Formats: sequence, C-alpha cells, structure tokens
Amino acid sequence: MKIAIVGAGSAAFSIAWIRDLCVMASAPGSTFSLVDVNEDRLEAAYGLAKRYAKELGVDIHFEKSTDRRSAFQGAQYVINTAFPGGHDYTEKMRAIGEEHGYYRGIDSVEFNFVSDYYTILGFKQYQLALDIAFDMEEVCPDAFLLQVANPIYEVTTLLKREKSKIKTIGFCDEYIGIYPLMMALDLSPADVAFQVAGFNHCIWLTRFRDKNSGADLYPVIDDWVGNKAPEFWRTTELGLWQETLSPASADMYKMYGLYPIGDTTRSFTWKYHYNLETAKKWFGHLGGTDSEIGLELRLQRFQAGVDKLFRLTNDPNAKLTDEVPPQKGRSEFSDFIDASETGEEKRLFLNIPNKGLLTQFPEDQSVELPVIVSKGGRMNPERVEPFPKRLVDFVLLPRMIRMEWGLEAFRTGSREMLVEILVRDPRTKSEKQARDAIDAILAIPENSDMSKHYA
Amino acid sequence: MKIAIVGAGSAAFSIAWIRDLCVMASAPGSTFSLVDVNEDRLEAAYGLAKRYAKELGVDIHFEKSTDRRSAFQGAQYVINTAFPGGHDYTEKMRAIGEEHGYYRGIDSVEFNFVSDYYTILGFKQYQLALDIAFDMEEVCPDAFLLQVANPIYEVTTLLKREKSKIKTIGFCDEYIGIYPLMMALDLSPADVAFQVAGFNHCIWLTRFRDKNSGADLYPVIDDWVGNKAPEFWRTTELGLWQETLSPASADMYKMYGLYPIGDTTRSFTWKYHYNLETAKKWFGHLGGTDSEIGLELRLQRFQAGVDKLFRLTNDPNAKLTDEVPPQKGRSEFSDFIDASETGEEKRLFLNIPNKGLLTQFPEDQSVELPVIVSKGGRMNPERVEPFPKRLVDFVLLPRMIRMEWGLEAFRTGSREMLVEILVRDPRTKSEKQARDAIDAILAIPENSDMSKHYA
Repeated sequence: MKIAIVGAGSAAFSIAWIRDLCVMASAPGSTFSLVDVNEDRLEAAYGLAKRYAKELGVDIHFEKSTDRRSAFQGAQYVINTAFPGGHDYTEKMRAIGEEHGYYRGIDSVEFNFVSDYYTILGFKQYQLALDIAFDMEEVCPDAFLLQVANPIYEVTTLLKREKSKIKTIGFCDEYIGIYPLMMALDLSPADVAFQVAGFNHCIWLTRFRDKNSGADLYPVIDDWVGNKAPEFWRTTELGLWQETLSPASADMYKMYGLYPIGDTTRSFTWKYHYNLETAKKWFGHLGGTDSEIGLELRLQRFQAGVDKLFRLTNDPNAKLTDEVPPQKGRSEFSDFIDASETGEEKRLFLNIPNKGLLTQFPEDQSVELPVIVSKGGRMNPERVEPFPKRLVDFVLLPRMIRMEWGLEAFRTGSREMLVEILVRDPRTKSEKQARDAIDAILAIPENSDMSKHYA
Repeated sequence: MKIAIVGAGSAAFSIAWIRDLCVMASAPGSTFSLVDVNEDRLEAAYGLAKRYAKELGVDIHFEKSTDRRSAFQGAQYVINTAFPGGHDYTEKMRAIGEEHGYYRGIDSVEFNFVSDYYTILGFKQYQLALDIAFDMEEVCPDAFLLQVANPIYEVTTLLKREKSKIKTIGFCDEYIGIYPLMMALDLSPADVAFQVAGFNHCIWLTRFRDKNSGADLYPVIDDWVGNKAPEFWRTTELGLWQETLSPASADMYKMYGLYPIGDTTRSFTWKYHYNLETAKKWFGHLGGTDSEIGLELRLQRFQAGVDKLFRLTNDPNAKLTDEVPPQKGRSEFSDFIDASETGEEKRLFLNIPNKGLLTQFPEDQSVELPVIVSKGGRMNPERVEPFPKRLVDFVLLPRMIRMEWGLEAFRTGSREMLVEILVRDPRTKSEKQARDAIDAILAIPENSDMSKHYA
C-alpha cells in the first residue's frame, strides 16, 4: 500500500498526523511518499517521519519528493494538505482588504468566516486541487484523493464536477465539537447515539439520542441552553475551537431548531462578527477562532508547530514517541485508509458527493455526513432526515449559494464576477470600492497567476 | 357569471380596469360585485362602473358592499386588488426605517426593491389574502382567486401552502416590458416569438426568436447592448417603468446571460440603488421606479387617478368612454376570465404553483410563466428551458430565499426572526439597530395587529 502526501511539509501536516498514519494497522509494509515544494520543511518532515516509524518499530518505507507525479506512481491514496502561500499570503491579502474597508479581509464573508478559507480568492487552492487530480488521472487514476486542506466544501464540489473520475473525499474534524458539548451536558459519550450532517464547516446535530433507550436527548440541550449555559458562560473562558459551547451556537440553535456543531457559527452572518466587541460577546474573551485575537493565537500555534518540527529535527536524541504518544489521534484520513485496507468498518464524518443523500440540496455538490467505510474504501452513507425548513432557507442555502458564486467566478475567470460577488458584501458601500479592492489584491506579485486567470 | 372585486375603491383599481372588465366578451349578463372598506371610494367606483357599462350599452349588473362575504355569494371569480393602509401607511413605515439608518425603508431590500411591496412587513397583505381565501372556502370554494395586489410571489405561494383548496392565480403586467425592448431593437412584435419566465418581478427573456424562420434574436440584443444602447441612453430620457431599456438591465444581461424584462432590476442588489446618484446612472434621470424621484412621481400619478375618479363622479355629463376608450387594456385578469368563460384560448403570463414547471426550484412556490388558458380556467403552462446556472445562483435563488424568510417570519409570528432578517441587510451595522427599527415600526398604532402577531 502506498500513500502520497502533498503538502507534507506544511504546518498543518503536523507530527501528530505522521503518528496517526504510522499507527494504522495497515501501515506495516507500506510506503509513505512525502511531497512538498519547500525542501527544508520536506526534509524535516521526512526525517521525523522516518524516526517516528523507527521508534515505533513499524516497517514503513518513506520517500520524499518535490515532484508530486513521481510520488503518485503506484499510490492508492493521495492526501492533499497543501496550503499554497500559507498564512503569510492570507494575512497580506487580509491587510489589503482592510485598507479598502473590508474588516477582516474580503474573504471573511457572510456564511464563511473561516479565516484561511477562500470564497473569492480560492484560486490557488482550486487550481492546485485540479492539478493534483489531473496528475492522478494520468498516474494513479484509481487512487482516492483525500482532501484535507480547505476550502473542503468548494474543492470537493469542484473536483466532482470537473474531474469526476477521481474519487475525492473531504476530511474535517469539526464534528468532534459534539464531545465538549456532551461533557457540558453531563452525558457520557458511551451512552449517546449522535449524528452530525450538513456542509463542511456548517454541520448540525441531526440526531441525539440515548443509545440504550432511544430517547431523544435534545431536551437535555434545551435544559442546558435555558438554565445552565448562562452560568457556564459566566464562569468558563472559552478557548479556540470551542464554538460549540458558545452563546452564538446556542443562539443559532434557538432560531433554527438544530444545534450547530464545531465551528458552524463561522457559516453565519455578521451578527456575531461585526467587531471584536461583538465577537467577544458571542464567543468569549478570544472572540472566537476568526477574531483578531483568535486568529493571532492560531498563527502562534502554527508557528510553534513548525518550530517544534525543526527543534525535534535538530535534536537527534529527542524521543518522538514521548513528544507524540503512539495512540491514534483525531485525523480521519488515516481511519479511512485503515478501514479501506483492513476491511474493519469505521464510521467516519466525510465530505462526499450528495447524490440524493441530503434531499433538500442539488446532487452535484459535496455534503458532510456519517459514512460507514469498509474494505476497498466502500462507503455506506447514513440516512439523514430532512433539515428544518428555516435552517435550509436561512443558513444552508445561503451558504450553498456562496460556494456556487466562488466556483462560478473561478470557472469563468471573470473579474467582473469577483467584483459582483464583493458588491453583495454588506461592507461594500459602492461598486468602486469593490472594484478597487479586487484590483489591488490581484495586483500583488504573489497573485500574478490569479490576475492572469481573472483577466 | 359573477365577479367579486376586493379593493374596488383602491387607486390601483382604476377606471381602465373597470373598462377592461366591461369590454369582455363574457361581460354581458354578468354581475360585478364591488367591495371596499372605504365607502366613499367604493361609491365612486360603483357609480363610474355603472355609467361606463351604460355608455357602452352592455348589460352588467353591479353590486357594492363593504362586506366581502356577501359579495362572494355565487361568485366564480374573486379579484383581490386591495392594498391595506395604502401608500400613506407605506411611506410612514419607510420614514421610520430611514430614521433608523435604512435608506428607502426596511422593506427596500436586496432582491426586492419594489416600494409598495413587503418582505418583512407583508403582514397586512398576507393576512388579508388569507382571510379572503378563508371566506372563499366557506362561501365560494370553487371560485378562482385572481391576486392582483403585491406581493404576488409571496401571497400566491403562501395561499398555495396554507389554503391549497382555493385556485389562486397571480397577475402582473411587467412582461410587457418586452414591447419597448422590441421597439428599441427595431423588431416588429408580429415577427417575434418570445417567452418570459421566472418569479414575479424577476422575469427573464427565456425565448426570443424570429416567428417565421425560428432564428434566435438574441444577437439583435447583443448588437443593441454592444453598439447602439450607449447612444440610446445618451439621447433618451427613461421614464417610469422603463427599466427594460435601462443600463441596469443591459448590465444584468451581460452578467447573467438572459435579458431581464420589466422591473426585474428591482430584484437585485444595492449595486443599482446605493443612492440617488447611483440610481440615476443606472436608470436615467428619474433614478428608476423606486428612487426618491420615481416613487414621488408614481404617488402623484396615483393621486391623480383618485382625483380623476372623484372628478368624473362629480361630473355627470362627462363621457367616460371618451376618457377611457372601450378597447381592451393591459389587465390580464379580464383576459383570464374571458378565456375561461368563452373558451377562446389566450396566452397569458401568470403566477401559478411551480409543480415541476421550473425544474430548478422547489414545487411548493409560485412561478411566473406563459400559460394557455381555456374554457373553465383550464391552464396549460408552456415548457421553459432551465435557466443559466449563474442566473439561478446569483439572482433567482437569492430572491427565492427572501420570499421564504418573509413567509417563515409570518408563519411563526417570531419577532426575533424579523430582527434576524433585518440583521442580514447590508445597511445594518449592529443587531441593536435592527432590533430598534423593528420595535419602532411595530409600535405605531397602525401596526397594532402586526405587533400582536409578532409578540
């Protein structure tokens, strides 16, 4: 079995993910081929991965390359975790947006506040994913493309439409927001049967039952929201990635009838994001994952991850399995590969083509829902009940439409459409403001490829 | 044959509409029952209608009543043209909206700039239409409800969902915007086969062909937009209701691939409506139908219509058939009744339940499209090709979603949802601003019924 990992040197592809792949039951005897355009980071990740496997005593053959096509030779799985440009690029574009009157940048938009995400400026991510899929069609057409890099909803939908032969699956661990919620509700995960579904970064608790009696547990949420949450919010400092427990999530639940899980509040309107003061009210002292404070903290953590990578690289005596214990972590792409290889069924939360799964939405887009994965990557998606109509009309359809706008602009290469999308942004006061912002962003050297595409 | 007309004393129900009903082939021997809550206006309309029929020498029995249920007895058709509160009420609410930072009022919103229209404040129109349908179910359950009063998209959809037994059809004459367009294009209507379809106030030229050769005539539009329109706009002062010929319509066509007809530009974003200066750029010197200038002119015309009603009433020597010549005008409800009664087929542009007609949209809403109407009100809708995807995603779905928001707020009676809808408005800078505006509007005496509904 061979896995190619594109973006293996990126900060996101941490040592924890190396660990998750190394501890797979199917890992022994396999080949992991690491790919990155940054040779230093690639070298560091390659060295650590080899050391980790050696400490673990598991027989894995490692390769490294800056050329993905050679890495794809004979691969059954390609993991895409690359983030072209990285956060420096994102922050540079955010700054240009702010100069033109777009607080938090032009890509922090209604129904998509994910800061390293692209609605308008998805160009590099879309293009890279298409290029990878194109190469896979030529080199390893039967391999699975496991898309880990954002924007997962957009990219997996785009690939299904443009490169339908490649089996693409999107991975995101935001569903785990259910666990701190169960803890707050004083429920033991062992006693709960839950289902979470929707679109990536916009997922909802579609089933919440007592595993034994089958009783609906939503009344426990109602009790928490109505009676206990105010005290919880007064006494708890919400950290990063704790949106599930935030006043914003409770507010959305009260209005839309299903509880939002993970960072779903990032797929909403400016109501929770107008300014830092508002964000603090709704997400606690950090103002949530995408605020000025939250994002700064995240960037610090990313940098600390990179620093650690190099520190451990430069310290041959460090014991990696002490740093990152050899227990399976939260990556689901390793679970997918393991289920596919060993045939041991796993229930995973995947982004896959809709094809009649969520009947209230078109078939030619991705949806996120639980899937039973078995031998050979066979997938049995769970049945999901229709969402409440108001949730569809107020959140899911508006979110879906933004995906369509971004992909249509990319597909047509129309700069006018980029402007038109930005005209629809509540921060825009005139067409000229939108036009100037788009022009300024496309004019920077890092965006020469994008400027050519949107000629 | 009996027709009941609710709102017969309203300014909208002009002497031209009385004429249209009187000249129907099916009019002789029938009964027209006029209903209004305003006794003075009802008396005036009743007197004029009787005189008009008498001048024409056609035998029509007229009734008048302030009680609609008595008028519904034995009716086969109920026309609803009532506008509760009228423009004074609308303008009062617009002023409160402007006081709270909502330029043009809280109901002049993206994808719905129609000034006498209600997205958030549809309460009175929705309630009246439901009450009429309720009375019809009891008194004349087999009659057609011909909805002429706005908001037609919302009201006809609501009635289909809530009062599905009543056959409701929405009428709007905006499709006639195709005629000035053909004139500008130097095309003779006799030589053109056209089709217009979409949602009310959001309709598109879905077919435009030479009647004889079958050749597509869109290239003629392309030539006009690309070469001749700039000169046309330089030399022509666009009047009210000439949106079809405006730079805004040409702009929408270029972006979305089908030409918008009638006042479809009113179902778009703030791009064309930011302020009067912007509106003048896109709609000419009046700034279009909904600008400060355009609306003022419309209100003057409405008032002139009412004044004329009373002037003619007070002048028994006036010859009404000189004032309004007895040729069929542009009302389509009279065409519908005539086709239904005589069996002479007519092609009309109607708002009817979707039921698989426009396949890109849910079935349980209204759509506007050409229908062949024949004996007994039998309707054969034309087949409409799917709309371009970008038109669906950028205009039609956003417009549809607003309809759903308005109806969901009404259905649930949730004031929080009114606030939530307004939070999504680009003019809103804080949740408090939206909340204060809603509270202020619901607090006026005229809205005591609405305030109770949205408790």
